Amino acid sequence: MTGEACPLLLTPGPLTTAPETRAALDRDWGSRSAEFIAMTAALRRRLVDLAGVAESHVAVPLQGSGTFAVEAALTTLVPAGGHVLVAINGAYGRRMATILARAGRRPVAVAGPEDRGIDMAGMRAALAADPAIRHLAVVHCETTTGMLNPIEPVADLAAERGLGLIVDCMSSFGALPVAGFAGRALALVGSANKCLEGVPGLAIALVQRAALARAEDRAPSLSLDLHDQWRRFEGDGQWRFTPPVQVVAALMAALDGLDREGGPPGRLRRYTANRDRLVRGLARLGFETLLGREDQAPIIVTLRAPGDAAFDFDRFHGALRARGFEIYPGKLATEASFRVGVIGAVTPDDIARFVAAVGQVMAAEGIPTGAPARAA
Amino acid sequence: MTGEACPLLLTPGPLTTAPETRAALDRDWGSRSAEFIAMTAALRRRLVDLAGVAESHVAVPLQGSGTFAVEAALTTLVPAGGHVLVAINGAYGRRMATILARAGRRPVAVAGPEDRGIDMAGMRAALAADPAIRHLAVVHCETTTGMLNPIEPVADLAAERGLGLIVDCMSSFGALPVAGFAGRALALVGSANKCLEGVPGLAIALVQRAALARAEDRAPSLSLDLHDQWRRFEGDGQWRFTPPVQVVAALMAALDGLDREGGPPGRLRRYTANRDRLVRGLARLGFETLLGREDQAPIIVTLRAPGDAAFDFDRFHGALRARGFEIYPGKLATEASFRVGVIGAVTPDDIARFVAAVGQVMAAEGIPTGAPARAA
Repeated sequence: MTGEACPLLLTPGPLTTAPETRAALDRDWGSRSAEFIAMTAALRRRLVDLAGVAESHVAVPLQGSGTFAVEAALTTLVPAGGHVLVAINGAYGRRMATILARAGRRPVAVAGPEDRGIDMAGMRAALAADPAIRHLAVVHCETTTGMLNPIEPVADLAAERGLGLIVDCMSSFGALPVAGFAGRALALVGSANKCLEGVPGLAIALVQRAALARAEDRAPSLSLDLHDQWRRFEGDGQWRFTPPVQVVAALMAALDGLDREGGPPGRLRRYTANRDRLVRGLARLGFETLLGREDQAPIIVTLRAPGDAAFDFDRFHGALRARGFEIYPGKLATEASFRVGVIGAVTPDDIARFVAAVGQVMAAEGIPTGAPARAA
Repeated sequence: MTGEACPLLLTPGPLTTAPETRAALDRDWGSRSAEFIAMTAALRRRLVDLAGVAESHVAVPLQGSGTFAVEAALTTLVPAGGHVLVAINGAYGRRMATILARAGRRPVAVAGPEDRGIDMAGMRAALAADPAIRHLAVVHCETTTGMLNPIEPVADLAAERGLGLIVDCMSSFGALPVAGFAGRALALVGSANKCLEGVPGLAIALVQRAALARAEDRAPSLSLDLHDQWRRFEGDGQWRFTPPVQVVAALMAALDGLDREGGPPGRLRRYTANRDRLVRGLARLGFETLLGREDQAPIIVTLRAPGDAAFDFDRFHGALRARGFEIYPGKLATEASFRVGVIGAVTPDDIARFVAAVGQVMAAEGIPTGAPARAA
């Protein structure tokens, strides 16, 4: 089953990783050995440095997927019964509300259309209507659509009202700038396998030290208690529970790769070039993006499905797969769409090859244009 | 940092893995691709087959460390406020009680000395004293000491009283027989990186299908909700949240290795030979084990620390590390000890080399005998 090569993953992750990153997987580590403790400490330092919050925040890596760390941050930082304003314009905002409700916190949802930014007026109205709200939770890049939600205005609002801000930076951390809000956020949550280009199995919470220190015994889950894990890191430097040692080592190698690329600004340049090449190339084939350029993060692009009757997503997906490219179905409730990621070890030349493959598939399938149906 | 070779890990895990297992890490996978969905389905089948419970149970692999799956099983299967009798003779039994209390369940602890088996009379007394108890939670092999807890009598007790049994098989699953109780347990919890000899990052819950079907919306954690993840597996075959794709692929390769070794019975023979070689060899150097042979699982062995004043654990550990062997500190509250694991890609010849290294270190350090102090 491992014999077949992996296609180029044009998805929101897991991503195509660099060979150097995967090479770091080929070693065992004693998880309680001095060398692994040193690696963990180095990783934690690199992560807060990357976000520019080494003075105020601490990094708490957590085993599992990104959602685990979102849940860990929300339930470690928000007390039982706490009211949290959640800005929703996609699946990941909705998921934060679900997590909070499950864990006995009170989400107050401000939901808007998935192709629109955060409803700031609605946020202000919700705050006025519920003075018990003490926290705000938002998603930086909504992978549902690829929408880039500006976080600065939300951070301003949080500062103005003295509220704690928790930001899901899953799809953005490592490439998109966070300097405008990171220092003011109670927590930023990221993942090893998005813009950091590691392999999946490790999530990351960057949390304000002072707030985390006050959060003892607050999380209803021992496994997802960031305070408890942080104390242990600050004490003997150990993970409480077995860490995915190979995944940690691969993330260190991936961070070396990020450094070689010039850090997040260098990576952002490549991702932006990928996105622009993709959008331009597909536009020439008639395709339309869901979002305008200003809303469209250089992470994942939602394309409207072609309106031509010859277009069938499963056939389209399969034909691209056969040509070595994996794309993603759309996640919109309102219209047919598909998604193409531009992150990972992917270059503008790879994107150009992909666009050429789309053209070949259209010719083979008899799809004259990528243009969506008018006024669906 | 990845340049230095890893020592032979004689620990409770992460373990020394086979090169074939690590080779399977060197590939990317689209986590929502048809091939990865097929791999997940195959993995789930192999796991229930391995435990001999394919008729009654379903496998729910979970991202993260083994403790995550222990918590997931306890909080998905035990309702809020539910009373759970927890048998404790080590750190992992204690941890189950902590998890339950945190999550708003009511642990009723029956704790005994760490060098003694489960206190069955105490269990019966606790059940008589609290008729609200509906679940029993026990640890198969207590990694704290290496104690093998016979589960059959606990399963008999559970059956007699109509109670749900949850067994932490973390350190045993894949080598020690579970046939005597698996079919009668509500859940068995294991890990990829113990006797299955995969890499860490993935835990496993095998749960009675009927009980899991009744457990909707019960877990306070979305991330650790086994019901929700099971429904998704049974529906479109997908993981709810990004799985550690490389770790999953490595576990499949590790299961191939288990098959080649003759399944759990073959693996148990090697581990037993490792343990016997270790105990015999160290006994010749004067060392004493904490446990008698009948209590001592062929997983990890606790040795009493030598009584000679020249013995210093940190120096002993460092000198063995320099010779290519990683051992573990003891975890006993009552006396100085250390631990040596015998699982992973480790052979009796490796153990013989280790015993020789211990002898060399003793000579170099001027430790005349491994014998513990008398009547500490």
